[in-house]
Amino acid sequence: MAQTQPRKTRLTFGVMLQGAGSHMNSWRHPGNPADASVNLDFFIANARKAEENGIAFAFVADGLYINEKSIPHFLNRFEPLTILSALATTTRKLGLVGTVSTSYSDPFTIARQFASLDLISGGRAGWNAVTSPLEGSGRNYSRPHPEHSLRYEIAQEYLDVAKGLWDSWDDDAFVRDRQSGRFFDREKLHTLGHKGRFFQVEGPLNIQRSAQGQPVLFQAGASEAGIGLAGRHADAVFANHVPLEDAQALYRSIKTSALAHGRSADDVKIFPGAGPIVGRTHAEAEEKYQAIRNLVSIDEALAYLGRYFDHHDFTAYPLDAPFPELGEIGKNSFRSTTDRIKRNAALKHQTLREAALEAATPRTDLIGTAEEIADVLIGRVEKQAADGFVLGFPVLGQGLSDFIELVIPVLEERGVYDRSLSGTTLRDHLGLPRKTSRYVDASAGVQARRAG
Amino acid sequence: MAQTQPRKTRLTFGVMLQGAGSHMNSWRHPGNPADASVNLDFFIANARKAEENGIAFAFVADGLYINEKSIPHFLNRFEPLTILSALATTTRKLGLVGTVSTSYSDPFTIARQFASLDLISGGRAGWNAVTSPLEGSGRNYSRPHPEHSLRYEIAQEYLDVAKGLWDSWDDDAFVRDRQSGRFFDREKLHTLGHKGRFFQVEGPLNIQRSAQGQPVLFQAGASEAGIGLAGRHADAVFANHVPLEDAQALYRSIKTSALAHGRSADDVKIFPGAGPIVGRTHAEAEEKYQAIRNLVSIDEALAYLGRYFDHHDFTAYPLDAPFPELGEIGKNSFRSTTDRIKRNAALKHQTLREAALEAATPRTDLIGTAEEIADVLIGRVEKQAADGFVLGFPVLGQGLSDFIELVIPVLEERGVYDRSLSGTTLRDHLGLPRKTSRYVDASAGVQARRAG
Repeated sequence: MAQTQPRKTRLTFGVMLQGAGSHMNSWRHPGNPADASVNLDFFIANARKAEENGIAFAFVADGLYINEKSIPHFLNRFEPLTILSALATTTRKLGLVGTVSTSYSDPFTIARQFASLDLISGGRAGWNAVTSPLEGSGRNYSRPHPEHSLRYEIAQEYLDVAKGLWDSWDDDAFVRDRQSGRFFDREKLHTLGHKGRFFQVEGPLNIQRSAQGQPVLFQAGASEAGIGLAGRHADAVFANHVPLEDAQALYRSIKTSALAHGRSADDVKIFPGAGPIVGRTHAEAEEKYQAIRNLVSIDEALAYLGRYFDHHDFTAYPLDAPFPELGEIGKNSFRSTTDRIKRNAALKHQTLREAALEAATPRTDLIGTAEEIADVLIGRVEKQAADGFVLGFPVLGQGLSDFIELVIPVLEERGVYDRSLSGTTLRDHLGLPRKTSRYVDASAGVQARRAG
Repeated sequence: MAQTQPRKTRLTFGVMLQGAGSHMNSWRHPGNPADASVNLDFFIANARKAEENGIAFAFVADGLYINEKSIPHFLNRFEPLTILSALATTTRKLGLVGTVSTSYSDPFTIARQFASLDLISGGRAGWNAVTSPLEGSGRNYSRPHPEHSLRYEIAQEYLDVAKGLWDSWDDDAFVRDRQSGRFFDREKLHTLGHKGRFFQVEGPLNIQRSAQGQPVLFQAGASEAGIGLAGRHADAVFANHVPLEDAQALYRSIKTSALAHGRSADDVKIFPGAGPIVGRTHAEAEEKYQAIRNLVSIDEALAYLGRYFDHHDFTAYPLDAPFPELGEIGKNSFRSTTDRIKRNAALKHQTLREAALEAATPRTDLIGTAEEIADVLIGRVEKQAADGFVLGFPVLGQGLSDFIELVIPVLEERGVYDRSLSGTTLRDHLGLPRKTSRYVDASAGVQARRAG
């Protein structure tokens, strides 16, 4: 790291395609179709608009358990691998990143599906490997939900297996010589033979490597175990939007973890979420924020707050008294979010009503004019709190249009953004080199072959 | 059944998209790209050509285990759900059917992925639910391969779960009333609460029903257990192309099984595979067959034969002596295929060389002129041996073009085929009604609701 030259600041974005937007009631906003979470045309239109304006990838989040209290766009939505594959043939350069849980799937299947998406899309696939925080997931999968540290132990081995399977065939393994009838080179086939604590997977995978070598591996989760997983395996990390100092600390932790695993700090890119609400004036942005906030009733806000705190019933407390003391409630699920809510409530002396409404419609430093938003985004990259951002617009239709119309021109003027995606693969867009096979000896530049 | 009117004979086709064709060395044929099994443009071109000519669906087969002896297009191919999703946005009416194993997947995930494909495609998804014959599959999935009867017991319960999950939301459950903020009708949400021998799945599924209600359920496998599964659960059955009497017997067995499960004989459609090789003259068709047969060396043919007989080593026998006695070898894997090979060898007094070359390039009654092929296909439907066919052309590019150019006009002249797909969903194409939710009381025409 010591010898790296100062680099020109350059902003890279992904965009979350999550129904009508990241806001719990975005479906009520007139700027979106109410059925956005299952509206193919809406997905395609936003994906294309993002691509045409240089946004590097679409990001499709996921969850494996719902009940009647879940927020609307979680109740009824496309499954990530299928919708991303549908977008693969309706876009040309856009990266296609989707969430799949390592706690509730098989590595042979998932390695294969992402490899297939990667091949179909010409090297644009990314997998956000998560371990599933929701306890209820186990009830849809005939097994107990593994506790936090076990989930991460499983994930570590799972990703070992997936990455091993992705290298089953050397890049030039398939010779396909019609004259001789030789379809592949036996020396370039590698059978994994993984025998681990959680998985025994023989291989090989029945699909070749892609234009980018392997799908891009995203990881999300800022716990110590999550940072360890990211340092060892991830090409990119999706993080929460948190105050600058916290974001810098997380950024440092992940880069340090990468170094500890014998990788370079540049090998893993940090992409916090960002949900800008932009106006032509600061007041207009504030009006847009209030309009979104007004989509939520106080009952819905209390239920939303409850989701983070183990479905705690907040209706039992007086609405206009100070935010209640909660003790240990919520410490085992969305820990960083519950800590943030509690800290914010204390800092601003919020009542329960105020805290709930703000939790349902978070107020961030990304509400303002294009210049103000550009300042924050550029500042975060310059101050080593981010390498890029996953744009999770509270209201997707309006948010993406406003961002393209108002913020991107400012970023272009400041010389930190370019609407043309010059490369073709997701790794190109993220500034990551093509992934070399584990069987290639980099120093000698020749294939180091292992017996199958 | 007694009261049904005689129906006009009408032929319905699916087409297998399996690399360069169903023949083991189709990749060597000049009529295809050699990389057909991973060539997206080739998939899209064939899918569109099929659709434009009234073929009802594409069928993507699958397997979960390969080794260096596997036939070429199995070594490196797209995964079914991802390629079908990619085809969903590049076709408009074509049904999209893919194989997924019930022995190596989770019902919540697979119900969801097919429901998502069904929604993305506007009601065109079909799932060929198989139990995986290949012993090696277990070695890629960290578990022992279940034996035959256990696989079918698992499959029965698996399909109960999947079909239950598909009815999680009534058709009109999502009201999405922006004014009131009411997204869905609580009365129209059904939580499955399945607690069975193999699966415990709470539900509900996080996706709505599609234009065709539920994805079409295909089943493949002609064993007694397979017929039982088809009778209870399947909308359609993919079968082997076998002699007429055998095909009629299977047809009757499946329809009888449907009746025994309280369904109508029309509720399950039988689609044997068919691999026509058509010429302008019979001699030209025979030449095309020989050209395909010549793509296989005798060593490859012996290895291919061995695949069906538990990887038995046929090189140990004299090539030009009569086909060897094999006793119990191969009785536990592809039983119907090994029986057919042995019967054929005895009938024709074949040497091992002849039997191996013919196994690798099967000679059927579908090699001939358009008129000859039309006679066979129409005869099979009229004689109640088939409701339609899955066209598995030995060489896909040439085979599909020839079929469209030569055979379809003859079928049109005879009044049994129409190139326009008049409906929009796969159920429409197959003559199946929209799938009604289990929570709808058909006799009363009202929703019979069960507590979630």
